[in-house]
Amino acid sequence: MIPIPLPHYIFPSPRHFIPPPGHFTPFPCSFSPLFSPHPPHSSPHPPPIYPLPPPLHLYPPANIFMPPLPAPPRPVQKAELVRLSQTLLHVRALHWVVVEDAPAPTALVGGLLAASGVPFTHLHAPTPPEIRRRPGDPPWLRPRGVEQRNRALQWLRDTRPPGEAAVVYFADDDNTYSLRLFEEMRSTRGVSVWPVGLVGGLRFERPLVAGGRVVGFHTAWKPERPFPLDMAGFAVALPLLRARPAARFDPAAERGYLESSLLGGLVTPAQLEPKADNCTQVLVWHTRTEKPKLRQEEQLQRQGRGSDPRIEV
Amino acid sequence: MIPIPLPHYIFPSPRHFIPPPGHFTPFPCSFSPLFSPHPPHSSPHPPPIYPLPPPLHLYPPANIFMPPLPAPPRPVQKAELVRLSQTLLHVRALHWVVVEDAPAPTALVGGLLAASGVPFTHLHAPTPPEIRRRPGDPPWLRPRGVEQRNRALQWLRDTRPPGEAAVVYFADDDNTYSLRLFEEMRSTRGVSVWPVGLVGGLRFERPLVAGGRVVGFHTAWKPERPFPLDMAGFAVALPLLRARPAARFDPAAERGYLESSLLGGLVTPAQLEPKADNCTQVLVWHTRTEKPKLRQEEQLQRQGRGSDPRIEV
Repeated sequence: MIPIPLPHYIFPSPRHFIPPPGHFTPFPCSFSPLFSPHPPHSSPHPPPIYPLPPPLHLYPPANIFMPPLPAPPRPVQKAELVRLSQTLLHVRALHWVVVEDAPAPTALVGGLLAASGVPFTHLHAPTPPEIRRRPGDPPWLRPRGVEQRNRALQWLRDTRPPGEAAVVYFADDDNTYSLRLFEEMRSTRGVSVWPVGLVGGLRFERPLVAGGRVVGFHTAWKPERPFPLDMAGFAVALPLLRARPAARFDPAAERGYLESSLLGGLVTPAQLEPKADNCTQVLVWHTRTEKPKLRQEEQLQRQGRGSDPRIEV
Repeated sequence: MIPIPLPHYIFPSPRHFIPPPGHFTPFPCSFSPLFSPHPPHSSPHPPPIYPLPPPLHLYPPANIFMPPLPAPPRPVQKAELVRLSQTLLHVRALHWVVVEDAPAPTALVGGLLAASGVPFTHLHAPTPPEIRRRPGDPPWLRPRGVEQRNRALQWLRDTRPPGEAAVVYFADDDNTYSLRLFEEMRSTRGVSVWPVGLVGGLRFERPLVAGGRVVGFHTAWKPERPFPLDMAGFAVALPLLRARPAARFDPAAERGYLESSLLGGLVTPAQLEPKADNCTQVLVWHTRTEKPKLRQEEQLQRQGRGSDPRIEV
């Protein structure tokens, strides 16, 4: 297997793009060179000619946007965001888009983001009451974070500069991310994929690769899904999201089909770009944080001796 | 409250130490200036005179040693260590001592440490079979990590340079650490303490402080313990550990008394040094990672279709 190299040039904005000779255009959109069906190493692109030096935020090749899961008030929320922010603080050219599941941004999350040192945008999008998970509902009954991820997609399409060669990744509060994962996803041209550890009841799920292309999926759960991938297992190029303005997460998607509802509007499975040594390296783990038991807290609070509520946890 | 300042000088090695006038020596040891019962701000120390420039690893003021919990082979082990290493990679002058609960160091942990970028020492100390937790034992039956933490103490006392003004902190694989915590603990002269979030059934446990001193503890569980503190809630100056060579964790300690078994050999509760704004800031959280369910993996393995065992998770 010849590994796919990181792109050695910057995609110009569509106004200035001149397709190199023999370039294949599978998608009817102005960003087609991003989605060449040929492995990148087989068609070397000449360095583009810029009328002006490219804006600095396009170099290194991709900014990474990470809208994490929404942030309902849970006891571990701050701890999880602190830990995630420490990971993200190592990643160059990353912009963190945090969308809270709240009627307004909260001071806890805003203060944490401001103190984190990570460039960020703080948005909010409350989940409509009719699809909000109720106490006692099993966690799989309603997909979480749909409204918030779609808000992030809207923000990206509405506010980012048109030519920006960024990559969008949907992070989660308590997953574990290797720093190498972010370098792998930087070269995403359309939709890139890789294994995810400790997910779906397996040691890992992963796309199966032959000849540099995705030919199937190792998964035990609903393998008939068009894209049997976890949210942590793919990234999308921002130009592709712009070229497919209707693509979004479907709040009515059946369980397990949320990822497919977005990806089906973007690519076919054969167009997925394998990363992480042809999907043989686990660089992200679907870790879950235990819900802490606060029984003693409730007892003390009934006696008026609870932990000082002015101290933030 | 007057905050305790970071020490602005480096403790000389005992050979060269000249006590400043009026210095109080409560402990019969050569490092007594570290354990002044006066709050540090009340007795300004003059900068010491060095016969030679101090070795670089003594400046910034304290190296921090962190022996985390032992590392029995669990599915989330690598993910937890990757995440912890990303936190530690932000901390200056830190040396990570990892003690595996294994008859020999494993390649998984060794490779991860080597790739982490964090200065480290990789040790091992198997838990004796007679005190090893058996499958089905409740998690609280036997204290975990005793043998490994004592191995780290031995390594520190045996191999570090005698005059080293380092601080020792016992980290855990899945706790969450604010980066500010490490700066707080750097000024530890004897044993420093601070709140721990989401522990003991409470939003937080914390030492109660009046007049710059610890006067009690907010805890709901066994408050009669001499030091009702979680392992994540204190750090110890290495010179104090050297001055008290018998102090160690007691493998036979009753449940909840493991921390007290070490600390009781080092200080009295009144000598604890409060950090984190007089113990009013939660800078560490006792987060726990859920044990992943691998039922589908077991099913597939019975069919000979398990996840590729050559891929490390």
